[in-house]
Amino acid sequence: MDFAYSARVEELRAKLQAFMDAHVQPADAAWKHEVEAGRYPTALVDDLKAKAKAEGLWNLFLPALKPDEPGTRLTNLEYAPLAEIMGRIYWSSEVFNCNAPDTGNMEILHMFATPEQRERWLNPLLNGEIRSCVGITEPGVASSDPTNLQTTIIRDGDHYVVNGRKWWTTGALHPKVKFCIVMGLSDPRPEADPHKRHSMIIVPMDSPGLTVMRNLPLLNHYSIEGHTETDFTDVRVPAANLLGEEGAGFALAQARLGPGRIHHCMRTIGQCEVALELMVERALERKAFGRNLADYANVQDWIAEGRMEIDQARLLCLRAAWMMDKHGNKAARTEVSAIKVAATRLQTKIADRAMQVFGAGGLSNDTPLAFIYSWGRALRFIDGPDEVHLRTIARAEIKKRKESNRSTFAEQGVLRPWVKGAS
Amino acid sequence: MDFAYSARVEELRAKLQAFMDAHVQPADAAWKHEVEAGRYPTALVDDLKAKAKAEGLWNLFLPALKPDEPGTRLTNLEYAPLAEIMGRIYWSSEVFNCNAPDTGNMEILHMFATPEQRERWLNPLLNGEIRSCVGITEPGVASSDPTNLQTTIIRDGDHYVVNGRKWWTTGALHPKVKFCIVMGLSDPRPEADPHKRHSMIIVPMDSPGLTVMRNLPLLNHYSIEGHTETDFTDVRVPAANLLGEEGAGFALAQARLGPGRIHHCMRTIGQCEVALELMVERALERKAFGRNLADYANVQDWIAEGRMEIDQARLLCLRAAWMMDKHGNKAARTEVSAIKVAATRLQTKIADRAMQVFGAGGLSNDTPLAFIYSWGRALRFIDGPDEVHLRTIARAEIKKRKESNRSTFAEQGVLRPWVKGAS
Amino acid sequence: MDFAYSARVEELRAKLQAFMDAHVQPADAAWKHEVEAGRYPTALVDDLKAKAKAEGLWNLFLPALKPDEPGTRLTNLEYAPLAEIMGRIYWSSEVFNCNAPDTGNMEILHMFATPEQRERWLNPLLNGEIRSCVGITEPGVASSDPTNLQTTIIRDGDHYVVNGRKWWTTGALHPKVKFCIVMGLSDPRPEADPHKRHSMIIVPMDSPGLTVMRNLPLLNHYSIEGHTETDFTDVRVPAANLLGEEGAGFALAQARLGPGRIHHCMRTIGQCEVALELMVERALERKAFGRNLADYANVQDWIAEGRMEIDQARLLCLRAAWMMDKHGNKAARTEVSAIKVAATRLQTKIADRAMQVFGAGGLSNDTPLAFIYSWGRALRFIDGPDEVHLRTIARAEIKKRKESNRSTFAEQGVLRPWVKGAS
Amino acid sequence: MDFAYSARVEELRAKLQAFMDAHVQPADAAWKHEVEAGRYPTALVDDLKAKAKAEGLWNLFLPALKPDEPGTRLTNLEYAPLAEIMGRIYWSSEVFNCNAPDTGNMEILHMFATPEQRERWLNPLLNGEIRSCVGITEPGVASSDPTNLQTTIIRDGDHYVVNGRKWWTTGALHPKVKFCIVMGLSDPRPEADPHKRHSMIIVPMDSPGLTVMRNLPLLNHYSIEGHTETDFTDVRVPAANLLGEEGAGFALAQARLGPGRIHHCMRTIGQCEVALELMVERALERKAFGRNLADYANVQDWIAEGRMEIDQARLLCLRAAWMMDKHGNKAARTEVSAIKVAATRLQTKIADRAMQVFGAGGLSNDTPLAFIYSWGRALRFIDGPDEVHLRTIARAEIKKRKESNRSTFAEQGVLRPWVKGAS
Repeated sequence: MDFAYSARVEELRAKLQAFMDAHVQPADAAWKHEVEAGRYPTALVDDLKAKAKAEGLWNLFLPALKPDEPGTRLTNLEYAPLAEIMGRIYWSSEVFNCNAPDTGNMEILHMFATPEQRERWLNPLLNGEIRSCVGITEPGVASSDPTNLQTTIIRDGDHYVVNGRKWWTTGALHPKVKFCIVMGLSDPRPEADPHKRHSMIIVPMDSPGLTVMRNLPLLNHYSIEGHTETDFTDVRVPAANLLGEEGAGFALAQARLGPGRIHHCMRTIGQCEVALELMVERALERKAFGRNLADYANVQDWIAEGRMEIDQARLLCLRAAWMMDKHGNKAARTEVSAIKVAATRLQTKIADRAMQVFGAGGLSNDTPLAFIYSWGRALRFIDGPDEVHLRTIARAEIKKRKESNRSTFAEQGVLRPWVKGAS
Repeated sequence: MDFAYSARVEELRAKLQAFMDAHVQPADAAWKHEVEAGRYPTALVDDLKAKAKAEGLWNLFLPALKPDEPGTRLTNLEYAPLAEIMGRIYWSSEVFNCNAPDTGNMEILHMFATPEQRERWLNPLLNGEIRSCVGITEPGVASSDPTNLQTTIIRDGDHYVVNGRKWWTTGALHPKVKFCIVMGLSDPRPEADPHKRHSMIIVPMDSPGLTVMRNLPLLNHYSIEGHTETDFTDVRVPAANLLGEEGAGFALAQARLGPGRIHHCMRTIGQCEVALELMVERALERKAFGRNLADYANVQDWIAEGRMEIDQARLLCLRAAWMMDKHGNKAARTEVSAIKVAATRLQTKIADRAMQVFGAGGLSNDTPLAFIYSWGRALRFIDGPDEVHLRTIARAEIKKRKESNRSTFAEQGVLRPWVKGAS
Repeated sequence: MDFAYSARVEELRAKLQAFMDAHVQPADAAWKHEVEAGRYPTALVDDLKAKAKAEGLWNLFLPALKPDEPGTRLTNLEYAPLAEIMGRIYWSSEVFNCNAPDTGNMEILHMFATPEQRERWLNPLLNGEIRSCVGITEPGVASSDPTNLQTTIIRDGDHYVVNGRKWWTTGALHPKVKFCIVMGLSDPRPEADPHKRHSMIIVPMDSPGLTVMRNLPLLNHYSIEGHTETDFTDVRVPAANLLGEEGAGFALAQARLGPGRIHHCMRTIGQCEVALELMVERALERKAFGRNLADYANVQDWIAEGRMEIDQARLLCLRAAWMMDKHGNKAARTEVSAIKVAATRLQTKIADRAMQVFGAGGLSNDTPLAFIYSWGRALRFIDGPDEVHLRTIARAEIKKRKESNRSTFAEQGVLRPWVKGAS
Repeated sequence: MDFAYSARVEELRAKLQAFMDAHVQPADAAWKHEVEAGRYPTALVDDLKAKAKAEGLWNLFLPALKPDEPGTRLTNLEYAPLAEIMGRIYWSSEVFNCNAPDTGNMEILHMFATPEQRERWLNPLLNGEIRSCVGITEPGVASSDPTNLQTTIIRDGDHYVVNGRKWWTTGALHPKVKFCIVMGLSDPRPEADPHKRHSMIIVPMDSPGLTVMRNLPLLNHYSIEGHTETDFTDVRVPAANLLGEEGAGFALAQARLGPGRIHHCMRTIGQCEVALELMVERALERKAFGRNLADYANVQDWIAEGRMEIDQARLLCLRAAWMMDKHGNKAARTEVSAIKVAATRLQTKIADRAMQVFGAGGLSNDTPLAFIYSWGRALRFIDGPDEVHLRTIARAEIKKRKESNRSTFAEQGVLRPWVKGAS
C-alpha cells in the first residue's frame, strides 16, 4: 500500500492543471457569457479541444483504447485525480473529450459496436467531432430498475421501430449531437426473462419521429446541452444499428454505468474542494460582530468537517477505481455504489456550509456555490438515487454473511442464548 | 392552555381555504404561465385582490389597524394559521395584501409615519394600490449586524442625500412599486453611538440617481418582482420623507423584523405541509422493485419524521406569535429567532426527502418541490442567517443563568468539587 | 389558544419546586450513597412520601381519582409540567407516588379491577404502602407487537397456570413489591383472533414458581429496584386475579401504554433542562485556549439548539397531553408516539453535547450527565423502540390521505401528468 | 497506489486471526467472569502472552525496535490491520503487548530513556513483565492544552518533588503496575516559555505520597485496571528518573500522542466491524410485524451506511499511518486528528444502530454492544476531545490558504468583485 500518486499521475496532474490555468480558467467568463445568452460556445470549445488533443490530454477516461485510437490510455485509478481537476470547472471535461454522456457511449460502443458502427459512430466521438446522447430513463416508471422500461424496440424487416417516451436525455440539444442510444423492450412478452427483454439501439438524431419535447431544468438550472424529454413515435432505425444482440440491453446498461458513476464522483470531489476553498477564502476576509469569520469555532468546525469528509470520499473513490482496474466493473459494484452515495451527498453538504459563510450573496450566481449546491443535489439522482445504491450495498453485506462459513457470534458464545432465541 | 384554534380562527381558516380553492388555485397555472413569460400578471392579481378585499380577507397580518383602515384585525396568533394556508401557494399572499416586504413597510409606517407620510405612502399600501420595497442589506458588509451598514443618508438643507449600494431589495421590479425604505448612516462619525448613527428614509422609486442594477437569483430562481441590486448615487429626498427621528434607524429595523420573520415561518409551515402531502401521495402511487414506495420502512420514516418536525415547528411558531401578542415583539425576540431557524431549515429538509420519493422528476419544475427546496434554502438567509439567530438564543440563555438568583448545581452539591475547580 | 400555564398549575409548580428544594434535593446525596452500597433507602423515601402526601402532592398522575381515593386530581396537561420538575431528580417520582410502573398498574387497576382486586391491590398502591411490577416484554420475541407474546396463562379449575419467561420487569427487586401484572396467551390456538388471545393477571410475588433470575443492566447501570429477567414455571394464581375478561390483554395493554409513555416524556424534558443548565454553567466557568467556553461559537450553537429542541419537545408533549384529556388516549395515539420519539432522542443528544463541554469528567459520575445520557438511550426502547412509533405515525399519515376526500395535487393540476403516470 | 494489503500483512493477519480464534476468543468468557468478580485474570493473560510471544506476535506496534528487543517490527501501516483485529476483543491487545498506555510509555522511553531507565523500566515493559501508567490529565484544567497543567515537579537536590492531582490515570490498578510517567511544571515561573515549563518524570508506584484515590467510571463502566484519580503529595523521586531534559515535557507529550491516537482508531474500526456484523446477524434472524428485520429498508439503510462509513474510516486511518511512516508523526498531525474524530464518532453511531436492531436486549450486557457504545463515547475524549482535533484541522487548512502562492478565486475573477469587497 502506498498512498502517493504515481510519478506518471503526478506528471499528468501538473500538466492538466497547467492547461486549466492557462486555457480553461481564462475562458470561463466567455463560456458563461455565451451560455447565459442561450448559445453553446462552439468555437471556443473547439479551439480548446484542439489544444488539449495536441498536448495529449485526450480521452483520458478510456482504459481500453486501441493503438489506432486517440487518447491517453489511463487506468481508472490514474484517471480519478485528473477528473477531479476537470471537475473544478463544470464545463471543462468536454475540452478533453471526457464529458458525459459521450464517455459512457464511447465505452459501450468500444465494447460492443460492429465495425460499421465503430466507423460511423464511435470514431467521430473518439475524435471529438460529434456529440451523442442517451435515452434510458422514462417518466412513467421507476427507471433505476431498468427491467421496468416500457419504450419498445420492435423488429420489422430490416428495421427496428422505436416507440416511447424518454426523459433526462442528457446532451440532446448540443449543436453537434448526432445520435441517441436508446434502451427499450425488444421482447414485450411478460413471460420472458426480465433481464433479456430489453435491447439498445443507435437512433440517429435526425430520424423522423424523434422529437425533443422540452429541456428539463435541474433545480431551475437549464443545461445548454439539454436534459430533455424526448419522444419516439414510430421511429424506424436500420437493424444494423442494434448494439450487441437482441435482449442484451440489460447487460449493456450494467457495463455502461460503473465507469459513468465513478467519473461523476471524481468530478464531485473537485467541486467539493472548490467549495471548501471558497469557504476558507471568504472566512479569512469577512468580519462579523467584530471578529473574522475564520476565528469563529463553528466556521472552523465546518472547515474541518469538510476536509475530513472530502479526504474520506476521495480515498473511497480511488479504492473503487482500483477495484475496477483490478477486478473488473462488476466486482467493484458495491464500491461504486458506496462512492456514488458518499460523494454526491457531500457536494450539497459542503456547498451548503460555504454558502452560509458567504451570506445571502452565496445564493446568487456571483459565486459558483449556488450551482455547485444545486448540481450536487441533482447528482443524487443521476445514475441512480441514493436509496437504490444503499440497497445494493446492504444486500451485498447481508449476502456476505449468509454465504460465509464463519461461525456467528451466537455460535461463538459471544451472545447469551436468548439472542439466538425464538422469534 | 388550550391547543385548539379559537372559533373565530376556525371560521376564518375555512373561509380563506374556500377562497383559495375557489379562486387562487384555479389561477395558479395562468399565474405561472405569465411569470415564465417574464410578465407580472397584474390583471389577474388585481382581480383576486378585489375579491379578497370584498370578502373581508384583507390585511390579515396587521394587529394594530385603526377604525378607518381596511383589514381583518387579527392578532399574530390568529394570523399564523391563515398565513400557513397562504404559504401553500407561494404567490397568494399578495391577493390578501399580506406579502413581504409590503407588510413590513406597512407595519413600520403604521408605527412611525407622519400624517403626510401616512396619507401619501401608507394608505395606498393598505389599500393594495401600490407596492413598495426595502433597502437594508448591502453587498460589502455583514448586514445582519445593521450597525455595519455603509450607505449614507446625509442632511443637506431641506433634503437628505442618499449614497450607497443595496442588494436583495425585494419587490423593486414590481410594476406598481412606488417607493423604497432605505436604511443608512445619517451620522457617519465613527465615535457616535453605533445604535444611533443610522436612519430610515422613504425614497420614491422615480428619484434621480436611484438605479436598479440587476435582479439577483436565489439558487437560479429569478423573482418576477425582483430581489435586486440597487444603486443610490446622490439621490435627493425631501427631509419630510425621514421615518421617525434621525438616528432611529436601528430601533426601526428592530421593530420591523419581528413580525416579518414570523410571517415567513408561518408560510414555511404551509410549504412544508405541501411537501409532505406530495410525498405521501407519490409514495402511494409509485412502485419500485415490486413494492409500493409507501411500504418501504425508510420512506415511512421520512413521512413520520416530517409529521413530527412540522408539528413541533408549528407549535413553536404559534407560541412565538402568542408571546408577541402578549408581551410585545421585543420580549419575543429569542422565540422569533428560534422559529426562524427551526422552520426555514425544515422546508429544505422535508422538500429534500419528498424529491427523493419523486425520483429525478422531483428536480424539474413539474412538481412544486424544486421551488420549495430552493426557496427554503434561501429563507435561511432572509431576515438573518441561522448563525445570527442561534447566537441570539445562546446569549439569552447564558444571560438568564448569569442573572439568575438560583444556586448553581455546583453550589447545590450536585457536582463533585472538581467541577467548580480551578482553571 | 393560550400558552401560559393556568393559575392552578403555576401554584402547583411553585409548591412542588419548593418541596423538591426543601426536601428532595437535600436528600439526594444520601439516596445515592445508599443505592451505591446496594441498599434501597426505604426509610428516607417513606419519610419523604409521608411529607408529600401531607402537603397534597400525591398521585398527581391519575386524572380519574374517585372521591375516596387519595390524590391531587390533575389532568394530563396539568400533570405534565409537574412531572417535568420531578424528572429533574431521577428517583423523586416515587416520593409523590408517581413512579413507573406503579402508575401504569394503578391506571389499569383503576379501570378494570374488581372490588376485591381494588381492595387488595389497588388501594395499598394508591396509598403508597406497596410496590408492584409488570411482566410484558419477553426475550424471545419482538414484544413491541404484543400479539407475539408466548407466555401462557391457562385456566385450570379455579386457577390460572402461568408459564413463560419475561424480562425488563421493572421494580421486581423493590423491597415492598407485592405483585406483578403478567400478560400472556390465554388462548394458544393459532387460529384465534390475534387481538383476543392474550390476558392479564395479577401474580403475587411470593407465588411458588415465580423466580427473579437476574437484574438486567441498562448500559451498565443496574437499577436498585430492578429491571429483571423473571421466570414463571407452573405458577398457579387464583382465577379471581384475572384482570378484566379472558382475552382482554391486548386492549388492557393499549389502555396502559398511552399515559405511561407520556409520563416518561415529561420527565425527560426535565432531564434535558438539567443537562442544558449544566452545560451553560460549565461553559461560563471553564477556559480553554485562553477563552471562556461560553464565548466559542460552537458551544453557543449547542446551547441554542438545545433551547430550541427542548421548547419544541415540551410543546409537543403538552399538546399530546391535551389531546388525551380532550379526546381520549386512543385518539392521541400518534401524538403520543411522536413525543415518545422526539423527547427520548433529545435526552441523549443534549446530554452528549453537555458532556463534551465538561470534558472527560463528563464521563464519570461526578456530574449527573453520564446517567442522563445512558438513561436517555435506554428510554428509546422503554415503551417501544423509535421504529415502532415512527411506523405508527407514518401509517396514520398515509391513512389520512387514503381516507381523505380532498383532491390530490395531481387532480388539482399542480403536477404535470407524468407524475400521475404509469407505473 | 495499491489498495491491497502487502503479502506480509496478509500473512500476519491470517496468523493473528488464527491466534485470536484458537486462544483469545475461547478465553473471553473466563476473562469476563473474573473481571466481573473484581479480579484481574493474571494467570489467564500471562499464559496467553507467553503463547503470543512464542508465535512472534509481540510488540507489533513499535516500528523502531532494535535488534536486541523483542517484537515484530512493523510499520504503522502494517500494524493498522492487526490492531483492527485485536480491537474486536477489547482486552486482547495486552496479550500481544500492544495495550495502552504501555505502548505510549514504551514509545517515549524508547526515544528518550537513559541506559539506566531502559534497563530498569523499558526492558521489563518490552518483555511484558510489568505494567505502567501515565499521569497527564488533571481535573482542574483543560488538559487538552498541556501547557495548562498545574502539577509541579520541582528539583530539590538529587530529587524531584512531585505535587498535584491527576485523573484518568489509565492502568494504575493493574496488579503489575510499577511506575507512572507524570507530566508537570518544572518551571513554575509564569513568564517562562509556556512550551518549556513542563517535564516528565518516572514515578515508581510505591513512592510515598502517591495515592490512588478512586477508580473513575466511563459511563458507569469501571475498568479493572483503573482509570483513576491519583494524588501526588510531596512525592520524592530520584533526579535520574527525569525523562529527557527539564522542560522537554511538552515535546515528549507531542511525540507520545500521535501513535497512541491512531492505535485507538485502528482498534475502533475493529469494534465497528463487530457492531456491524452483529447487526446483520440479528437482522437475519429477528422478525417483527411478519417480516424479517433484514427486509426492512430502514435497517438496510443502516447496514449500508455502516459499511460506507467503516470503509472510509479505515482508508483514512491507513493513510494517516502511511503518512506517519513516510513523513513522521509531526507531518501527519492533521491526518491523525482527522481519523481520531472520524473513527471514534463512528463507534457510537454504528453501535447505536445495532442496538436498535437488537431491541431492549441491546442495552444489557448480553451482547457486546452496550460496551462498544459506551466505550466509543468515551473515546471521543481519550487523547483529546473532538473539538480540539477539529480546531487543529481547521487551523491547518486556514494556514495552508494563507501561506499559498496560488491566486484566490477573487483574483482569478471567479467571484464578482463585491465578494472581495469592503467589510
